[in-house]
Amino acid sequence: MYGVILAGGSGTRFWPVSREQSPKQLQQFSGSGTMIQNTVERLLPLISIENLYVGTHQQQAFETLRQLDSFAFSPNHLLAEPCSKNTALAIGLMAKIMEDKDADAVMAIFPADHVVSNSEKFIQIIQKAETIAQKGFLITLGIPPTRPETGFGYLKKGSEIDEDAFQVEQFVEKPDLATAKGYLKNGNFFWNCGVFIWKAATILKELQKHAPDIHSQLEKLVSFLKNSDGKLGHLEFSEKGCQLFSSLPSLSIDYAVMEKSTKVALIPADIGWNDLGAWNALDEVCEKDSSGNILTGNILAQDCNNSIAHGQNRLVALLGLKDTVVVDTQDALLVCAKDRSQDVKKIVESLIDKGHPEWKLPATVKKPWGSYTVLDSGPTYLLKRIDLLPGEALSLQSHNHRSEHWTVVSGSAKVELKEEIFHLKANESITIPVNVKHRLGNPGTDLLSIIEIQFGNLLDENDIIRYEDQYDRC
Amino acid sequence: MYGVILAGGSGTRFWPVSREQSPKQLQQFSGSGTMIQNTVERLLPLISIENLYVGTHQQQAFETLRQLDSFAFSPNHLLAEPCSKNTALAIGLMAKIMEDKDADAVMAIFPADHVVSNSEKFIQIIQKAETIAQKGFLITLGIPPTRPETGFGYLKKGSEIDEDAFQVEQFVEKPDLATAKGYLKNGNFFWNCGVFIWKAATILKELQKHAPDIHSQLEKLVSFLKNSDGKLGHLEFSEKGCQLFSSLPSLSIDYAVMEKSTKVALIPADIGWNDLGAWNALDEVCEKDSSGNILTGNILAQDCNNSIAHGQNRLVALLGLKDTVVVDTQDALLVCAKDRSQDVKKIVESLIDKGHPEWKLPATVKKPWGSYTVLDSGPTYLLKRIDLLPGEALSLQSHNHRSEHWTVVSGSAKVELKEEIFHLKANESITIPVNVKHRLGNPGTDLLSIIEIQFGNLLDENDIIRYEDQYDRC
Repeated sequence: MYGVILAGGSGTRFWPVSREQSPKQLQQFSGSGTMIQNTVERLLPLISIENLYVGTHQQQAFETLRQLDSFAFSPNHLLAEPCSKNTALAIGLMAKIMEDKDADAVMAIFPADHVVSNSEKFIQIIQKAETIAQKGFLITLGIPPTRPETGFGYLKKGSEIDEDAFQVEQFVEKPDLATAKGYLKNGNFFWNCGVFIWKAATILKELQKHAPDIHSQLEKLVSFLKNSDGKLGHLEFSEKGCQLFSSLPSLSIDYAVMEKSTKVALIPADIGWNDLGAWNALDEVCEKDSSGNILTGNILAQDCNNSIAHGQNRLVALLGLKDTVVVDTQDALLVCAKDRSQDVKKIVESLIDKGHPEWKLPATVKKPWGSYTVLDSGPTYLLKRIDLLPGEALSLQSHNHRSEHWTVVSGSAKVELKEEIFHLKANESITIPVNVKHRLGNPGTDLLSIIEIQFGNLLDENDIIRYEDQYDRC
Repeated sequence: MYGVILAGGSGTRFWPVSREQSPKQLQQFSGSGTMIQNTVERLLPLISIENLYVGTHQQQAFETLRQLDSFAFSPNHLLAEPCSKNTALAIGLMAKIMEDKDADAVMAIFPADHVVSNSEKFIQIIQKAETIAQKGFLITLGIPPTRPETGFGYLKKGSEIDEDAFQVEQFVEKPDLATAKGYLKNGNFFWNCGVFIWKAATILKELQKHAPDIHSQLEKLVSFLKNSDGKLGHLEFSEKGCQLFSSLPSLSIDYAVMEKSTKVALIPADIGWNDLGAWNALDEVCEKDSSGNILTGNILAQDCNNSIAHGQNRLVALLGLKDTVVVDTQDALLVCAKDRSQDVKKIVESLIDKGHPEWKLPATVKKPWGSYTVLDSGPTYLLKRIDLLPGEALSLQSHNHRSEHWTVVSGSAKVELKEEIFHLKANESITIPVNVKHRLGNPGTDLLSIIEIQFGNLLDENDIIRYEDQYDRC
């Protein structure tokens, strides 16, 4: 069996932890591991890592690969999309790749950012679905609703077509509250959770029938796929492939196929599913203290009830709060009534409207080689800590508008400057003048941390000329 | 007329803005200017700056002087106390100093951290009080209560002894709520606000009678006073003076004199007084938006009501809050139900108990020469921005356990290193090795900002040997 994890979401509703460039599936909210790591772990009893594929935006490719490194996930099973095109195109592509490998391949699709608390039952249901999928059905899991949720689409169960599998009588758009209450009572309505199981051949045939615009380009698109030249080695499109991909329609698989096909089957799945749609959803998946609080980070709480605090290193003191969400990050803070959690996306819209940059990049920005954190800035300087992973290196580069002062504070650095090589250890400094080619590398086995002081009249990430780059970013 | 501003408070209830080493009177909460600046401004129509004295803890001396610089306040009118000894001793000392200058001096005492919204009436009342004080009374202002406050002491008005001045029939300790409600209804009870007016000779005589332990040492104590040798030039005690001061009893002037003397007179003062006792008191003194919010800093608020947010540069997003206080500082955050504002002091007690350092020093620490801000730290490094005021200099110093890397990011620096002098401008760096004598100065007319990277196995403010210091800190 093959698995596809769709990791394309941006998760604005978990701002300020999730940002456009560090979405929800790459974050950790409960227990151990990030959401995508938890998703992989959940699947491994059923699908070997060699049969697992991940689709994500190219901006997240390197961090996604890093998070999957400990599973020995193969980089060339990561498909880096040049832009967001919803689920139909990515699923079609994956189906094409799998069918090419194995004409009888059964594939299962999983969102990267959902929680399943009953993994055992989940696995049993996917196994059952595999058997039914062999018969040519498009299986979708249906979650028995536990509340009159107005934020999800629903599936109406029809007559039984196989053991514990049913026709889908109707796909229902997000209902109003009264309707949702009726669905909850009725018992025949299920949440559409975005988990699908089918033969690659089946979905391709159905795509051909219901979404020929997409289907007709899949073979060509696959031919434009190549491993990236850089160190990462993930799957990406050639320039022509990017152009073609970008030109294709952006459709959900529900809209493109499921709502139209006659082969859809529903398997009810009472598996403790949660889409973790907003901060208040942590109430359903995290352990609480005796006052109903979920507190993560450097938190001091007195007389607080049913509140959520998600912090980092900074001290957060809470006094007398009820039903409040406090999310503290280095460059942005959210304090929100818990029952307004869904509207955090409106805050993000406001930030975009008003030109605040904090919706996009987090304070610590992940890079193929590690990360950097902005620590301070002024009109003519920008102060960063650069954390460079063992064996990694930044590109050979120069800047037109800034000089840089580097001081190693931990680990050891290899610095190329003009034609010379310098080996710096902790407590040693070097200055990089404007316009001079340079490269910073970590030849050691420990993390290299340097403090970088950028100085100049234009301090912009785009003021960079790359001459060589082991991640293929030239 | 002489004035004394008592600026000794630590103001834990305004944590995290106020800290032990940056107390409430040195902070700005509303309008323009800090609380002590507002206090001086309020007095200037009545008392010339030449007749104004300030008493504060020696740790706050330099920052207090800096804040009073624009008033041309004379440094040798600032009395720097080596430790906190409540009000009786400071008032006695000030009375002694003033009586020595002018046997008939009338002096008025003002706390540095209160708000008076009706300054005109305040001035009129002080003027009236001056006249009555000439007759040998100890005048205390009584604030007509506007709520059944249980956090203040009360004064009970007796019979009239002069125009609009009354005997004090009783000093009442903080009452319970039922009693406070009775006082509010009664009309003869007033809040004791800590503003006093009297002849220096009168208070000294009364101190002699009721607090002879203190009075008997005043002359000796004054003889131990000297201008500081350093650049600040404030009044401080010689070593012997410090020892004597520290050995004397710590009493409030109320307890030591007012509750015992027969010369006390009360003048009711409906002057819009507010002691700004906690964050929720801002509701009474600050302008609000149309939803009843008071928002200071980089705040984005949606659907919030009657809330207070006090931020700095960092983005603070608030959603759906009611009656909530959010105070964001660089190294600590407070989120608190507004009606629990009084209990912020309990948070500070917890911080002390649990060994959190954030109760003591703020992230930006004021120094005689300017300030430093901690930006980042790791096991072997500490990163600071040092902001050095024009004409100022750090001490000639060395460190046993750390080296330092300095990069100028704005202004120009004069660096003494061993026997050499280096002049550094922006974008230039220098390294200070362990154990080498060095001094950083700002010879220019603009602020000098440098990024300092400390590196070593022991990174402690106390790892400093001072050889010369223009602020007399050797």
